[in-house]
Amino acid sequence: MEVPVVRNLLEANDAIACRLKESFRARGILVLNLISSPGAGKTSLLERTLTDLKGEFVMAVIEGDLQTDNDARRVAATGVQAVQINTGGGCHLDAALVEGALSGLTLDKLDILFIENVGNLVCPVEFDCGEEYKIALLSVTEGDDKPEKYPLLFNRAAVMVLNKMDLLPYVDFRVEAAVRFAGRLNKSLKTFPVSCRSGEGLGAWYNWLREAKEAQGK
Amino acid sequence: MEVPVVRNLLEANDAIACRLKESFRARGILVLNLISSPGAGKTSLLERTLTDLKGEFVMAVIEGDLQTDNDARRVAATGVQAVQINTGGGCHLDAALVEGALSGLTLDKLDILFIENVGNLVCPVEFDCGEEYKIALLSVTEGDDKPEKYPLLFNRAAVMVLNKMDLLPYVDFRVEAAVRFAGRLNKSLKTFPVSCRSGEGLGAWYNWLREAKEAQGK
Repeated sequence: MEVPVVRNLLEANDAIACRLKESFRARGILVLNLISSPGAGKTSLLERTLTDLKGEFVMAVIEGDLQTDNDARRVAATGVQAVQINTGGGCHLDAALVEGALSGLTLDKLDILFIENVGNLVCPVEFDCGEEYKIALLSVTEGDDKPEKYPLLFNRAAVMVLNKMDLLPYVDFRVEAAVRFAGRLNKSLKTFPVSCRSGEGLGAWYNWLREAKEAQGK
Repeated sequence: MEVPVVRNLLEANDAIACRLKESFRARGILVLNLISSPGAGKTSLLERTLTDLKGEFVMAVIEGDLQTDNDARRVAATGVQAVQINTGGGCHLDAALVEGALSGLTLDKLDILFIENVGNLVCPVEFDCGEEYKIALLSVTEGDDKPEKYPLLFNRAAVMVLNKMDLLPYVDFRVEAAVRFAGRLNKSLKTFPVSCRSGEGLGAWYNWLREAKEAQGK
């Protein structure tokens, strides 16, 4: 009984997502959907990225959380426009929520739109929000078995940002094992080990953004 | 359209959970449902607890994961019986899954049954699995804003285990703020700061288990 309802929900979502994606592409906006566990560092990655690249790109952020506008305020403090979606009890963003949030943003001349999803490694993965790419964040404090245990995200993401590398000396996390598990799920996955705290490794992530933006222009 | 379906699902779940809870109480089994983000340390807390208390209580574990039986194998290595539920893509355990898993366990003489839910701060909270108490785990690497951002779990849990206290010197986590946010949601919440790595603080958690077990016997 549950399956057809879920399928209808996903189909309805995909129809909106498809329309959004066409519209984003027509406007030349690169849209990235950031997905991770709670506290893996999505907002920290955005704070760094927005601060470091705001001279280069016009960027905006849609923040998804069950409650609070903490993250939108953190992001807005970088000087980049941000809009907060509160899902109430909802465990993921979907295309309709993103479409509704667009009215809160100035889309003219926008180069990159980041969607920070609800912190959840499972539910957000199946709900396309019209993004060009999903970006998976995994922090080294979560354990190297997470790609194996939550395979769908790592299968569908274009990028895995391995965050909190500054904590690597204090935890049992084998970078090689995480990359190997994730690579089995997705041969084209790009991995960027970073520390949003120290700034280590962010240059490679920024270069990926530049390349993705350039590829979109072609 | 979606709301009545979700309500029916929850009602159906609650009916099974209610039956399970009666059966657990009649058998004198204390059932605890462990809920946290992925990688917060649920399995590590179980490994420690099972090892340290197995001379004192007869315990068993139901492990919930999307994929793999890694956690059931880790738990079984302590000598305690464990059964793994793989949810496929499912983002939470529910009462029917737990009921189905009971056939894989010897319930006679069991004192404590731990249910390790799927790593997810949102979806598992609404699905009662017949437990006496929900136990929330929060690791200090996730940020002190998590109770505020994911309020339902901290509202419904009896205990908040604050894990990875050994990493506190390396992260920006205000224990006082996390406890204050959580306390606003739930005045009777007990907090136990622990490190499953060093063993720090586990004694207080064990004492809570002893008290909960004793209270059940009355």
